[in-house]
Amino acid sequence: MKVIGIDPGYGRCGVAILEKNGGKEVWLYSDCIDTKPQDGFVERMAQVVAECERLIQEHRPDALAMEKLFFNSNQKTAMQVAEVRGAILQAAHAAGVATHEYTPGQVKSATSGFGRADKKQIATMLHMLLKIEKPVRYDDEYDAIAVGLTHLASVRQI
Amino acid sequence: MKVIGIDPGYGRCGVAILEKNGGKEVWLYSDCIDTKPQDGFVERMAQVVAECERLIQEHRPDALAMEKLFFNSNQKTAMQVAEVRGAILQAAHAAGVATHEYTPGQVKSATSGFGRADKKQIATMLHMLLKIEKPVRYDDEYDAIAVGLTHLASVRQI
Repeated sequence: MKVIGIDPGYGRCGVAILEKNGGKEVWLYSDCIDTKPQDGFVERMAQVVAECERLIQEHRPDALAMEKLFFNSNQKTAMQVAEVRGAILQAAHAAGVATHEYTPGQVKSATSGFGRADKKQIATMLHMLLKIEKPVRYDDEYDAIAVGLTHLASVRQI
Repeated sequence: MKVIGIDPGYGRCGVAILEKNGGKEVWLYSDCIDTKPQDGFVERMAQVVAECERLIQEHRPDALAMEKLFFNSNQKTAMQVAEVRGAILQAAHAAGVATHEYTPGQVKSATSGFGRADKKQIATMLHMLLKIEKPVRYDDEYDAIAVGLTHLASVRQI
């Protein structure tokens, strides 16, 4: 059982590949896709989607997991993140990868055991639960790892 | 100069192909893509994207035009429409089609000469401006025609 966890965005997009192997969750890869502010929105979205497609081709995950998106005060940003999210869901669907959504509360519960952990606590827990074999660059990358782990914790398959 | 106008949605999605030919706008095709409520959101989005991709392959438009999306009271619907919108923008970009956005005010001005026309007035104007050679099924189809016409009206190319 392999999952690609994604924290969608067009400026930065966190991506993580995790696997459940013999009942144990294993970190395989994570990174943060960066795009250049001078590129237009559609171009930046296309760069993010291309890298997600490349990772799906390389790692062949069984599932894709993303956090459910909730509106925040910045509606323009929220809408553009939703657009990137849709393009990634479509790319995964086209590649035959099942897509799953988790609420922020589900992600926090699955990674830290309670639903109100802050970002630093979650990062600490992720390092305790997984052997992350590289420096994590941004919160987006931790968020991608966390939602991937949430999916692995929610499935019974080994 | 050929344009595909789209009124994005996952339940119904309006699509229109228009052309500017010798300074005159010509209707070539329009329809409303319907999806089944019993299918999941990602499946419905994939059906919409597949039909948009088919139309782009068949008609080879120079540009894609969509209305800018504004949030309404139903945030869940708005977000899912934004997701479909992103997937369509990505499909157009991948096919080498330039993408353009217009505000509802720009669409109303371009199609009816003033920015406060209602849907019925716009439909009447569209029938006066274009020879639409089929019955139009829903407002979504008119909206797709209207945004396509807005793009043709905004470009100087013939």
